[in-house]
Amino acid sequence: MIFSSSLLENAVNEFAKLPGIGKKTALRLVLHLLKQPENEVLHFSEVIADMRKQIKFCTRCHNISDKELCNVCSNSSRKQDIICVVENIRDVIAIESTQQFNGTFHVLGGVISPLDGVGPDQLTIEQLINRVAKENTQEIIFALNPNIQGDTTIYYIGKKLKDLPVKITTIARGIAFGGELEYADEMTLAKSISNRISIDHYISTVN
Amino acid sequence: MIFSSSLLENAVNEFAKLPGIGKKTALRLVLHLLKQPENEVLHFSEVIADMRKQIKFCTRCHNISDKELCNVCSNSSRKQDIICVVENIRDVIAIESTQQFNGTFHVLGGVISPLDGVGPDQLTIEQLINRVAKENTQEIIFALNPNIQGDTTIYYIGKKLKDLPVKITTIARGIAFGGELEYADEMTLAKSISNRISIDHYISTVN
Repeated sequence: MIFSSSLLENAVNEFAKLPGIGKKTALRLVLHLLKQPENEVLHFSEVIADMRKQIKFCTRCHNISDKELCNVCSNSSRKQDIICVVENIRDVIAIESTQQFNGTFHVLGGVISPLDGVGPDQLTIEQLINRVAKENTQEIIFALNPNIQGDTTIYYIGKKLKDLPVKITTIARGIAFGGELEYADEMTLAKSISNRISIDHYISTVN
Repeated sequence: MIFSSSLLENAVNEFAKLPGIGKKTALRLVLHLLKQPENEVLHFSEVIADMRKQIKFCTRCHNISDKELCNVCSNSSRKQDIICVVENIRDVIAIESTQQFNGTFHVLGGVISPLDGVGPDQLTIEQLINRVAKENTQEIIFALNPNIQGDTTIYYIGKKLKDLPVKITTIARGIAFGGELEYADEMTLAKSISNRISIDHYISTVN
């Protein structure tokens, strides 16, 4: 692409650094911004800069936060002795958006994956163990993606926690709502049969 | 989506205002920026703001420019008496990227489209007529999209220019390279037959 303006070219190149955004999309976004009122574009620019400069990570659960403790950790109406362990911030947002979980979180910052060079030391596992010991946590719910890395991480943390009096669970695996049996993979279908639940319990959770 | 940080939420909302970017994509982009070094994100933010504040439009051809005259208009090695008339800046970039055109441009800022409320007065048509008269232009090449609005615009400008000694052409319509005859629409195929070109000329332009 050949540009008649270096200001335009720089802006397109910056946008094209973002994941999933190529040069053509970047150009479309930049030309859109050029058409907007100047104060709106300056606001866009400021909000991005402010976020990067001011954002903090909760010292307790490592979730993104505006303060030392995030909204969840500082909310006394939530069950502070239940911890849902997730891989990243996107998972926190997904679970929060269901509005069904009333405990707290612990963001690992990834999962154990030797192939990608991620070991337990790069994750917040030690902080989790210390937190469970110190806070006398009642239950840990693992909400990790169902794959080898996720299962390895659950196994590793589970072993570390075995001497502490904490109940350890994992979110249910099975056929998704709206999913169709015939298109489900064998592993999921097999697990959903072996982990079958009583119909009374099913009805009480659906309604 | 429920966010644990208003800084994060504001940034996601700003990104989600861009065309073709939904909340989930916006979140992905924002979390990517959070992982980058602070100075890179501040640079991103500055480049966008600088572009919006400082960008100019070339006073001669209305192309985006850093100065009064754009790179094309101020380049004496280009044929200043040939004007390629295009709808918008994206078309200039597309034609410049072919590196085959050695004349100048005139950006109309749109095409005549009564249904969208765009009349000749909203476009830079008068400036084009004045420019052709003043600069003693030799040739005008219309490079507008092949649709009713484009053809209307060509017809309108052509009538305005009819008393001036300028050659008026339009880019060729036909089957695209890599296109297949059987999938071409009837209009394009019919035009490409009626506007057929001599094989000698074809070979000389392809090689």
